[in-house]
Amino acid sequence: MKKLIVSCIIVLAAAFAGMAQQAKPDFSKITLVIHGGAGTITRASMTPEKERAYQEALNLALQTGFEILKKGGSSLDAVEASVRMMEDSPLFNAGKGAVFTNDGTIELDAAIMDGKTRHAGTIAGVTNIKNPVSGARAVMEQSEHVMMIGRGAEKFAQEKGLEIVDPAYFRTETRYQQLQRLKDKEKTGLDHSGGSGSTEPIFIEGNKFGTVGAVALDAFGNLAAATSTGGMTNKRYGRVGDVPVLGAGTYADNNTCAVSATGHGEYIIRSVVAHDIAALMEYKKYPVKKAAEEVVLKKLVARGGEGGVIALDRNGNFAMPFNSAGMYRGYIKNGKREVAIYKE
Amino acid sequence: MKKLIVSCIIVLAAAFAGMAQQAKPDFSKITLVIHGGAGTITRASMTPEKERAYQEALNLALQTGFEILKKGGSSLDAVEASVRMMEDSPLFNAGKGAVFTNDGTIELDAAIMDGKTRHAGTIAGVTNIKNPVSGARAVMEQSEHVMMIGRGAEKFAQEKGLEIVDPAYFRTETRYQQLQRLKDKEKTGLDHSGGSGSTEPIFIEGNKFGTVGAVALDAFGNLAAATSTGGMTNKRYGRVGDVPVLGAGTYADNNTCAVSATGHGEYIIRSVVAHDIAALMEYKKYPVKKAAEEVVLKKLVARGGEGGVIALDRNGNFAMPFNSAGMYRGYIKNGKREVAIYKE
Repeated sequence: MKKLIVSCIIVLAAAFAGMAQQAKPDFSKITLVIHGGAGTITRASMTPEKERAYQEALNLALQTGFEILKKGGSSLDAVEASVRMMEDSPLFNAGKGAVFTNDGTIELDAAIMDGKTRHAGTIAGVTNIKNPVSGARAVMEQSEHVMMIGRGAEKFAQEKGLEIVDPAYFRTETRYQQLQRLKDKEKTGLDHSGGSGSTEPIFIEGNKFGTVGAVALDAFGNLAAATSTGGMTNKRYGRVGDVPVLGAGTYADNNTCAVSATGHGEYIIRSVVAHDIAALMEYKKYPVKKAAEEVVLKKLVARGGEGGVIALDRNGNFAMPFNSAGMYRGYIKNGKREVAIYKE
Repeated sequence: MKKLIVSCIIVLAAAFAGMAQQAKPDFSKITLVIHGGAGTITRASMTPEKERAYQEALNLALQTGFEILKKGGSSLDAVEASVRMMEDSPLFNAGKGAVFTNDGTIELDAAIMDGKTRHAGTIAGVTNIKNPVSGARAVMEQSEHVMMIGRGAEKFAQEKGLEIVDPAYFRTETRYQQLQRLKDKEKTGLDHSGGSGSTEPIFIEGNKFGTVGAVALDAFGNLAAATSTGGMTNKRYGRVGDVPVLGAGTYADNNTCAVSATGHGEYIIRSVVAHDIAALMEYKKYPVKKAAEEVVLKKLVARGGEGGVIALDRNGNFAMPFNSAGMYRGYIKNGKREVAIYKE
């Protein structure tokens, strides 16, 4: 009997503690930061129409995610919603409008991580899940696993009721032409640049590029990160980049930060970029901006890796460093919303 | 002309420096450390015959890799050779003798990293590459990529002349029976334990388990790490564990350490275990033993993750911490060779 009473008290105390936590949302710090890919993005290669189209898409993604945060929704819901918007836009190299592999297929990778629980889900090499980021979330929440690949991941998503599409859904003519040009050159091009060795940026020719990602802080102090991509144009052999490699392209931990990366995936993997930023905060007590800049502007540059990150800490401090010509990016916080493309 | 002379002097100086480096191998520190998997390995569940078989296999793997180091070979060659020996042995859950998926197939993952260059290669979900660790090395050395998955990775390995086998080569009867028992229980079992919820360790029934890995320091002061696995028995949906997730199950950097992990892959991924050990050394100046123990015996335990690592620094200091009942492991250094299975 005594045991039962003690148990009841513990349960009630836990319930009240939970309610107290639920009841004290702090909306002053809620923040959402997104990116739509880093690379050779210059004013010279852009038209006013294109610029406007990207700005609109970025604003829409920000608005969509922030509405969730404003209503007291979770950072996890916010990053998923923002990334879905960008997956659905043909402008970015994720979901619809993703780049083609050498075989003429489209193979998608995505990841999501919850900073509160440090749970995560990633998928790689999927061809028919309409929103890969939601596939990653299903792996996180509805399986005991973290990473699933290929047909297995597709089967899982289907069983969990996610929207499955004909692979043709992802196809855009501009991406297909981009593949043909790259094949002609027999070169492997980065998803976000004019292709290695290309003097004429493919971008000028009307092609679009860009891995997408989002990091968010909700009113309950929880961080989350999500990233989604089609990888490199003309990629072969089931190549997978940094996105589904947890700690490289995506990472979130309430104790440090939420990070989503974009750029030359191989360098980002080898430098374990996202976790390295978190480690600098945890072990050297760097603020988030200093940590992100140290990794992206110093370490990654020294190693020859092109790219950028968005990184956000638990107090709403954030950074968007990139070492490439440009990075589609934006944030929304304290009633202020900004999107940018080039180095300012 | 002046420019030419200066150039010549620079070239000659570089050549001499290179020769000097080549000419001064330091054999006093060469070290090789291996593991054959961590999990519920207890004296009570072992027979003298089985114990001897594992000890012999571990000794053979150590001997094979160390011969390379003794002759002035690279740490990369040493870890690859040691892991290949264990892949070829039906005793371990890697290569021949790997565990079965729910579909009755065998899907293998492997990774290798060079601490000198921080280059790396990983493969996941391959079914016909006889030695997956060599497939990972081919990705590292013969492609611009770090990670390849599924049929693409297999195609690449074939094109590069690696040994391709009929998937039936990997099959062992004991593993197949293990799958049947797990399927009967409708549970997903860890590759290295008796299966979640099982009170009777499968090991007792004569099954074998164990991800394999090696870390080495060569006479030129270079570190390398390699890991190979069949993952979890009864795994579904193209599940991939920590092994091919660089920074989680495998990492090497001359500035810090070489690490290979084994255990419950999902926890190892979410904690970015291998890179976290390196980060503690880089940012908090922890010695390798303290760093490895901090991550495996404290952080991983607090998060409920079962497993172990082998970690080695540039001076030949190493650690083999694990938080499970046992870990197949061994090292060879300064004429001393030791293998162990249980907690001592």
